[in-house]
Amino acid sequence: MVKKLQTVRSCTVVSPTNLALIKYWGKRDASKLNLPLNSSVSVTLDTNDLRTTTTAYLMDSKPEVDCDRLWVNGKEVSIGETPRTKIVMEEIRRASGETRTFYVVSVNSFPTAAGLASSAAGYAAMVFALAKLCGIDADARRTDLSRIARMGSGSASRSMFGGVVAWNMGVRPDGEDSLAEQICDVRHFREDELHAVICVASDTKKHVSSTSGMSTSVATSLLLKHRADTIVPARFEEMKTAVRAKDFDTIFTLTMRDSNQFHACCLDTYPPIFYMTDVSRAVVRLVEQLNEKPFAPRFAYTFDAGPNAVIFCRTGSDARELLEVLLEVFPPSAADVRSDGGFEFVRGRSRRSRAEARGEAVSGLQKSTISLDARRAHEGEISYFFHTGVGQGVRIVEEEGCALDLPSQV
Amino acid sequence: MVKKLQTVRSCTVVSPTNLALIKYWGKRDASKLNLPLNSSVSVTLDTNDLRTTTTAYLMDSKPEVDCDRLWVNGKEVSIGETPRTKIVMEEIRRASGETRTFYVVSVNSFPTAAGLASSAAGYAAMVFALAKLCGIDADARRTDLSRIARMGSGSASRSMFGGVVAWNMGVRPDGEDSLAEQICDVRHFREDELHAVICVASDTKKHVSSTSGMSTSVATSLLLKHRADTIVPARFEEMKTAVRAKDFDTIFTLTMRDSNQFHACCLDTYPPIFYMTDVSRAVVRLVEQLNEKPFAPRFAYTFDAGPNAVIFCRTGSDARELLEVLLEVFPPSAADVRSDGGFEFVRGRSRRSRAEARGEAVSGLQKSTISLDARRAHEGEISYFFHTGVGQGVRIVEEEGCALDLPSQV
Repeated sequence: MVKKLQTVRSCTVVSPTNLALIKYWGKRDASKLNLPLNSSVSVTLDTNDLRTTTTAYLMDSKPEVDCDRLWVNGKEVSIGETPRTKIVMEEIRRASGETRTFYVVSVNSFPTAAGLASSAAGYAAMVFALAKLCGIDADARRTDLSRIARMGSGSASRSMFGGVVAWNMGVRPDGEDSLAEQICDVRHFREDELHAVICVASDTKKHVSSTSGMSTSVATSLLLKHRADTIVPARFEEMKTAVRAKDFDTIFTLTMRDSNQFHACCLDTYPPIFYMTDVSRAVVRLVEQLNEKPFAPRFAYTFDAGPNAVIFCRTGSDARELLEVLLEVFPPSAADVRSDGGFEFVRGRSRRSRAEARGEAVSGLQKSTISLDARRAHEGEISYFFHTGVGQGVRIVEEEGCALDLPSQV
Repeated sequence: MVKKLQTVRSCTVVSPTNLALIKYWGKRDASKLNLPLNSSVSVTLDTNDLRTTTTAYLMDSKPEVDCDRLWVNGKEVSIGETPRTKIVMEEIRRASGETRTFYVVSVNSFPTAAGLASSAAGYAAMVFALAKLCGIDADARRTDLSRIARMGSGSASRSMFGGVVAWNMGVRPDGEDSLAEQICDVRHFREDELHAVICVASDTKKHVSSTSGMSTSVATSLLLKHRADTIVPARFEEMKTAVRAKDFDTIFTLTMRDSNQFHACCLDTYPPIFYMTDVSRAVVRLVEQLNEKPFAPRFAYTFDAGPNAVIFCRTGSDARELLEVLLEVFPPSAADVRSDGGFEFVRGRSRRSRAEARGEAVSGLQKSTISLDARRAHEGEISYFFHTGVGQGVRIVEEEGCALDLPSQV
């Protein structure tokens, strides 16, 4: 029997996911502190296109009752089985002095299993909402809150800020200097600048989780150690400088090379970890074909711990042109269209149903920049696309009707 | 008009290919000297199963006539367009004082394009045959000849010897100490020990050549530099010690890890080089499943500059068991069997036609060690297999009727 609690107050936030330009791979401390082997840099994505919405409730429980609860996408998640949730809640209590119970309800606008860093958005949202709920001036203390978000999921620290964000690995054993900082905010870019197209692969295989993959890589890859000790420190500075200068040649080249190096370290792990598949490689080859100049690229691919490609574009019109080519090479199959013609095949900023996407690919009306034999060569291999761009960090939403309700049975 | 020359004498050799346990990737000197970035170790394969046969002819030309000729698999190859052939011929002339014309005829017992190191076998054969033809005591001077074979193709230096062979990178700028040496000869292993199963993938894509791949890797991969400078020197010694001790745990583990690290460096190259495909990865996963203990493996996969897997086995019976599993997971497709039921699907030591292989896979008579859903999961993805083992280095064949004739029009 769960004791019925009353709500004291609530706080609702929307939180972005983020995509790393310099990858985080490997922990130097996998304990509660969750400290990385290297610094990383990421782009925060627009919550209009992909977001986690989280409402945190403060309940009228007695201090001694340990009965925090969490619901993600409508399903209760056991806090006992997600130790990092417990850690985050404890850290917020320590920082605020609050002792009452937390109920947290969270919903992703994108499929959790799609490999789109849902844990980054989720932990950033939870930390921000709980902090505000407990009277912490969350907006003013984003850097400090990035420390707590880091304990939930390393990359969550970076979703505290919008624009382009660095997570400094820090050197202290207690992790107090392992914090996110904003390199530039979203206004550093023009409205139509720095778009991203995410290609969600149809691949449904179970992948090695980041946590377990990192741990095996740290234990076995000699290349990862060299990467973290020697290569990333220089790249991290180079990337920050390039972002500040809006030097897209460097940002894009370094993004691709760092993604490749991260996957190289996965392959150097024993037993080896493969996240990229033949579909991923087909995207790489297509981007290379469109780029023409490898060191002055128009587009930059990057891959996280799965086969999904993310392709950064300098401008919105580049993104739209890229999408046309992608739809030609990776259209939905005829069978997929028949099974659900209304399925949103391109999401975010350039919506198309499967039927529309297939129609464009088949009609061949576009001024195609790709060779004929590449057209429809990878039909059905991409499940859907997102078209999005750079956005703001996690933030409170005060509008009426935005709060997520507690499940009715509570 | 080509001047008609008369044959003075000929010499015929058979030469093995070899498979690297510690990979050669990258040149520190890509000139005529062809010097590697790191030392490497290989197993010489049995010429009963895979071989290059080469007959070198000495012709009665005047010294000033530069008209050496070469035929590979029945087709003339222009020596002007294969500068390394010219280099090898010049080095043999320099070593022997011979000045007359060479005609060389060479045939591989395996498809040249299958990525089975045909250049290693081919250049070793050419060097050995020409040396003997010119009065050099080739058998006694294998180490010295490995220096010349190296100038043709780096890995050819290792085909000079049988058993397991090391190619010491050397330190001298003139390459005089970049030579092959035998770690152990073929009798170090029992007859039934150290077999290999080669999986030739159906993939027909054009791959980046080793020469151009190495050059891009040396120019762009920071991980390759670290590998060559720091990791391989230790691994090279560890592998030699393990081979001498027949410590299969170490030989096999190190073989897999070094193959993975070589492919990691290819991926860290910019633009990235991908040799392994989804088929390669399926073989890796199957070997992992059969191995159970990653650090005491029964089988060791390794991949060269293409998608083909080579799987080393401790014994012949392990190899036969592995082949049964491979035939279950990668059987020929029904359509392939119909198109040519007599096509040799398993070659070398355990011959089977496509029809026989398909029959075994479908009948499921084997005591299968793999899960049901893996059976026939990769039908048609492997073109054929070789079952072979460790063998002798390049050698003269004196038997009547072994010499390859010059093309009839010559």
